[in-house]
Amino acid sequence: MNIELVTIGTELLLGQIVDSNGAEIGRLLAERGVRVCRRTSVADDAESIRTAVSEALGRTGAVITTGGLGPTNDDRTKVVVAELFGAPLRFDPAIWESLVARFAKLGRSVASTNRCQAEVPLGATVLPNRWGTAPGLWLEGEPGLVVLLPGVPREMRELMRFEVLPRLAPRAGGIVILSRTVRTTGVAESRLAELIGLVEGELAPLTLAYLPSVVGVDLRVTAWRLSESEAGERLDRAERRLRELAADWVYGSGDVDLAAVVLEEARKYRWHLAVAESCTGGLLGGRLTAVQGSSDVFVGGVIAYDNEVKVHHLGVSRDLLANEGAVSEAACRAMVEGLIGRFGVEVGVAVTGVAGPAGGSAEKPVGTVWIGWDLVGRTGAIRLVLPGDRQEIRARAAQAALFALLRAMPGHH
Amino acid sequence: MNIELVTIGTELLLGQIVDSNGAEIGRLLAERGVRVCRRTSVADDAESIRTAVSEALGRTGAVITTGGLGPTNDDRTKVVVAELFGAPLRFDPAIWESLVARFAKLGRSVASTNRCQAEVPLGATVLPNRWGTAPGLWLEGEPGLVVLLPGVPREMRELMRFEVLPRLAPRAGGIVILSRTVRTTGVAESRLAELIGLVEGELAPLTLAYLPSVVGVDLRVTAWRLSESEAGERLDRAERRLRELAADWVYGSGDVDLAAVVLEEARKYRWHLAVAESCTGGLLGGRLTAVQGSSDVFVGGVIAYDNEVKVHHLGVSRDLLANEGAVSEAACRAMVEGLIGRFGVEVGVAVTGVAGPAGGSAEKPVGTVWIGWDLVGRTGAIRLVLPGDRQEIRARAAQAALFALLRAMPGHH
Repeated sequence: MNIELVTIGTELLLGQIVDSNGAEIGRLLAERGVRVCRRTSVADDAESIRTAVSEALGRTGAVITTGGLGPTNDDRTKVVVAELFGAPLRFDPAIWESLVARFAKLGRSVASTNRCQAEVPLGATVLPNRWGTAPGLWLEGEPGLVVLLPGVPREMRELMRFEVLPRLAPRAGGIVILSRTVRTTGVAESRLAELIGLVEGELAPLTLAYLPSVVGVDLRVTAWRLSESEAGERLDRAERRLRELAADWVYGSGDVDLAAVVLEEARKYRWHLAVAESCTGGLLGGRLTAVQGSSDVFVGGVIAYDNEVKVHHLGVSRDLLANEGAVSEAACRAMVEGLIGRFGVEVGVAVTGVAGPAGGSAEKPVGTVWIGWDLVGRTGAIRLVLPGDRQEIRARAAQAALFALLRAMPGHH
Repeated sequence: MNIELVTIGTELLLGQIVDSNGAEIGRLLAERGVRVCRRTSVADDAESIRTAVSEALGRTGAVITTGGLGPTNDDRTKVVVAELFGAPLRFDPAIWESLVARFAKLGRSVASTNRCQAEVPLGATVLPNRWGTAPGLWLEGEPGLVVLLPGVPREMRELMRFEVLPRLAPRAGGIVILSRTVRTTGVAESRLAELIGLVEGELAPLTLAYLPSVVGVDLRVTAWRLSESEAGERLDRAERRLRELAADWVYGSGDVDLAAVVLEEARKYRWHLAVAESCTGGLLGGRLTAVQGSSDVFVGGVIAYDNEVKVHHLGVSRDLLANEGAVSEAACRAMVEGLIGRFGVEVGVAVTGVAGPAGGSAEKPVGTVWIGWDLVGRTGAIRLVLPGDRQEIRARAAQAALFALLRAMPGHH
């Protein structure tokens, strides 16, 4: 089944917001075997909406719109689509009552301008919106199929999940588009391509994409329009093969976060973890505490941005800092040692580096980062030179620290 | 001047990537008075590209495309557009040489599949791409104007800046679309609307948008298609008015970050700043150290996630934690006191709260956050109940801590 998206909003064209709804709907539909064959973004004036929706109906016969369902004058989608279907608008008391109830809960009365939100084109199915004021609408008839969704991402998402996908998926006839992702970090895309490129033919008819981001390269393998069971089998095989080939850099599958993997490994041994952060300034702790339930493993640590903090709160010697510099193997190892001693944890990790843009030198250019660790007495340290701007270097340093911990864990390497 | 965008890539329709190029080009053009009146995303097959580009030419006469300029079989934009202009492709030795040189620098030879990247439609202007392998192209003739840009964001951005905007801006005839943003935090969008709605009429012909995000509500006022000087004057006046009306919650203009504002204020008095973080787990330090040059003000702090860290590294009494709980005014004030004492700084701030999803109670529901501070002896603490999921609560708590510091600064309130 093919469908088109029409995303409505002047702010989309002005670039004031990115069309994340368009991408999310595309992904949700693809997973159920429905192919988005075109996406059109137009301003929220009636003429632009009318042209875009009727062109899409003419080409493809099925359209999902987002945006233009609110109570203000800018929101004209419903009126325009009702006209295309020749369907007069009728006031729906049930919608009005739920609107009144919703506002009452917030201690407010409903403005009369909201009344139009309770109007429904004759013959349309109302898709109840428990997350906002504007219900979705499903119109199907002579011109084709039009589904109207609100533009608020959360409301769009919930309506897709509960109302739209269950109605559309059966029309795709059991054919799905499924993907599997293998996550790597600490390796260049070109190096992965060298290793994996040789066997890419084996994966056919599955396709492989390299998706680089600041924190690593994801390998995504996709099965296009196969039956669910065949897709599943082929993806299992492909995932195993990719994990073998990229074994040195793989930390998980799907959308798993490296911080969660590290916490899970440490939890197996009932280890506790602390951090000493200089150039990352708290980002590493932020990554670890973002994981729900991290508190049984992660205890905290020291943000040792200033050298005096390294001296007073981690016991790094002032002489060492003067002689070797704060960005050095010796300083990094001393930070770990002080951290372990003062926090009484089994596992400690320290990060110190030059995030830039200032502070680099020929010997220690911007991007130079030392990562040191101690796992129940086994210590190590590595030096990296990370690319990118200040924020990228910091994000990469936090990720590299997590990956260094993972590789130091028993059974990893 | 009106123009359409056609963004090309199957991965856009599948939602594997978000169309950030489309938004960015829209914004860059709007600033120069060029209006994007429609954006179309299609798959990278020749037929879809041909249809989308020729429809756009028919409607608007001017098109920018992104994507489909690489060396692989998927990249067909150039061939299709050359056909629309009836322009044969000619091999351009200069492009080929720069390609060979580029690869040589990376120690590689150019594959013969790259040869097609050196082909140029007859009559097209080559837009040199110093940031990648595929040059942009500018075709203007009987069908209209088509500008082809690569899909790699960095390459697109640099070509827009150096090649496309200088050629397009003069065609907008000195008319610009300019925006000004006033940033607020700690206040609900509805409360701002109550205050500002009364005077929205005064701002005409400028329009006002409320842009809520996790860390606050931005007020964006836009001057549409005025001369640059008139737009500037009206925006200055509007900005002053908005700053007056929302004074209690404004922390800056444009894209300024609250962490940078706080650091700048502290720098005026040569104060040093340290943080004690429980539920934010390092995010607050991360925000502060994201600001370039923060090291003369921010010294570091303690990530006191576990209660034992609060006891040992901030001197919070174990009895106090047992009696009042870690999320309490007393615990928060004790964290600040310990922080100031141990770090010897003029300014300290502490955050402790329930980020959830577990750990809430009737008395201290998920989202309950205490923020405490000490500025050269003047102390304070506030309790907030922040909405959202775990990550939103944590991000809001870090922002609220920064805002609490700003309001405690001399001359703020």
